[in-house]
Amino acid sequence: METTKALVAHPDHAVLWHDERLYLLDQRLLPETTAFVACESVQDTAQAITDMVVRGAPAIGVAAAYGVVLAARARVADAGNHWRERIEEDLQRLAAARPTAINLFWAIERMRAFMAPLDHLDPVPALLAEAKRIHAEDLAANQRIGELGAALIASPTAVVTHCNAGALATGGYGTALGVVRSAHAAGKITRVYADETRPWMQGSRLTAWELMESGIPVTLQADGAAASLMAGGEIGWVIVGSDRIAANGDVCNKIGTFGLAILARHFGVKFMVAAPTSTIDLSVASGADIPIEERAAAEVLACGGKRLAPQAAEARNPVFDVTPAALVDAIVTERGVIERPDGEKIARLMEGECDS
Amino acid sequence: METTKALVAHPDHAVLWHDERLYLLDQRLLPETTAFVACESVQDTAQAITDMVVRGAPAIGVAAAYGVVLAARARVADAGNHWRERIEEDLQRLAAARPTAINLFWAIERMRAFMAPLDHLDPVPALLAEAKRIHAEDLAANQRIGELGAALIASPTAVVTHCNAGALATGGYGTALGVVRSAHAAGKITRVYADETRPWMQGSRLTAWELMESGIPVTLQADGAAASLMAGGEIGWVIVGSDRIAANGDVCNKIGTFGLAILARHFGVKFMVAAPTSTIDLSVASGADIPIEERAAAEVLACGGKRLAPQAAEARNPVFDVTPAALVDAIVTERGVIERPDGEKIARLMEGECDS
Repeated sequence: METTKALVAHPDHAVLWHDERLYLLDQRLLPETTAFVACESVQDTAQAITDMVVRGAPAIGVAAAYGVVLAARARVADAGNHWRERIEEDLQRLAAARPTAINLFWAIERMRAFMAPLDHLDPVPALLAEAKRIHAEDLAANQRIGELGAALIASPTAVVTHCNAGALATGGYGTALGVVRSAHAAGKITRVYADETRPWMQGSRLTAWELMESGIPVTLQADGAAASLMAGGEIGWVIVGSDRIAANGDVCNKIGTFGLAILARHFGVKFMVAAPTSTIDLSVASGADIPIEERAAAEVLACGGKRLAPQAAEARNPVFDVTPAALVDAIVTERGVIERPDGEKIARLMEGECDS
Repeated sequence: METTKALVAHPDHAVLWHDERLYLLDQRLLPETTAFVACESVQDTAQAITDMVVRGAPAIGVAAAYGVVLAARARVADAGNHWRERIEEDLQRLAAARPTAINLFWAIERMRAFMAPLDHLDPVPALLAEAKRIHAEDLAANQRIGELGAALIASPTAVVTHCNAGALATGGYGTALGVVRSAHAAGKITRVYADETRPWMQGSRLTAWELMESGIPVTLQADGAAASLMAGGEIGWVIVGSDRIAANGDVCNKIGTFGLAILARHFGVKFMVAAPTSTIDLSVASGADIPIEERAAAEVLACGGKRLAPQAAEARNPVFDVTPAALVDAIVTERGVIERPDGEKIARLMEGECDS
């Protein structure tokens, strides 16, 4: 992996295929530094996902699709028409990069299914075209989600978002921030309050940067400040993304989302989850079955590169939590809106897949 | 103000009168560095309170009492028996150091009342004795609060605390952490989960250090991780301190406390506020009348000394929030426990003052 600053940093360029390489805008360095990591191989790609060079469930999925292209190129060069047997190991490596976001497995699965019938010696052009389709479809899905989500907002209001479910977290435009973009353009959002989102500070580093780049008014706050803000009556909606939605409508998302949903219900604030259908995992019955990544305690014990807690201190660092479907007012997908989600409504939405 | 490392750093030594000066353990530098700031004057003391060298409502009160002694010494040296007219300006300066914690005003008021009948030329020895009484009474109150609070915990459990309401925040022993100390000694607390408490990181820097120094098991977590922890069923109580309690039982405390109380109620976890009666302010009818300090946005925009948000980013930084009395299961004071607090019970507790 090497780093370049030559490409233009823009929230819509979190994942870029350029000059036969995968470029990832290094989200660990934003907003101070805008640099791209160039992935030459599937190993580079998997490492970049593990290290959170790229993060955000849909963006991870898009990056993984391009990672499969890199894997195929290397396997064809190495093993000729035995590439197909050899590539399975690469797909496993990619799938092990992070455990929670379903979009990673979804994208690998889609690429695997796509490659199955390929019988020509060089599958790379076709696989690259499929990866680009996944990328373009994600962008289009987000634009549709933006429209549908904005339509739910009845009158101009301030909103709260958590983590970054923006262009940076997706193939472009964003899920939660896609709704924010569309609603702001329609004059329905007066201000976004962004939780800073400890420990990784996606709110401070990514959401603030992305919204400021887009000219949307944004105010940061400590995660603990959400209750007093909602008590003030200014907030109409909480709008977040998701890393995986279970068959019953339970929503897995960044740690802190569950608490925010409980506060929203307490204060009569509506709670919207914006996510493409690639985030819905019908194979897990409920949120209890979703594996929750636990990252290094050091992420909690330090901040801004500085150790803050005593040397021997312990910390828990679950990266996601699960918001029960009962606390969700609406799940907004590119195929439609589910209000008060439950298993039946989710199943009906997903059956539409076969019809289309 | 000068800094010394010569004194022994210990959680019980946040405020020390030594060698005719006031020494404050510099809580901005913990746990990395244990150094004391020496206050030679009331101006030094007020500045140290504003700058959060000393923080925690009761500790601020104790420091202010010693600050009045320093003021009197300077005014006597300057103005002889006109010290009493001149000192009023110093008391005003001290009272303006921070707006929310009532203990600051309470301590100044008690010192003012004490000095009123003093007719001898040098009031310093008597004022110093009174400041030491305030200090010793606070310590004794916390020990009593510890006993009474521990008695409320029926069976061994893990607990959550927020911010630092420990020895460091008081004249010694601590309020919330006083309850933790007493309950842990009685085998009733298995582990303390400490919210890191952005933006000032009192949990990571102070509570973790204080509990580790005392051999009490502590695990840090991001503030947003409290809901998933409580959902796990391990937590019996949330235990916090307070900066001011209104006449109706509303509790002002560190930003994030209100949200934690809503989560506790949602999950059936009990919510305990531990505070001396000097924290109760009968002059404010409800929490809505308590002035909430707003500190610099820079505290939110940076962490660990490093700017994390974009340069022009905005932030809100309310330092406290108000938890309505209805969400509080018990207020524990040195004079007794109020379960399900309301105005009548608070009034009855405070009337006890006249009887004693």
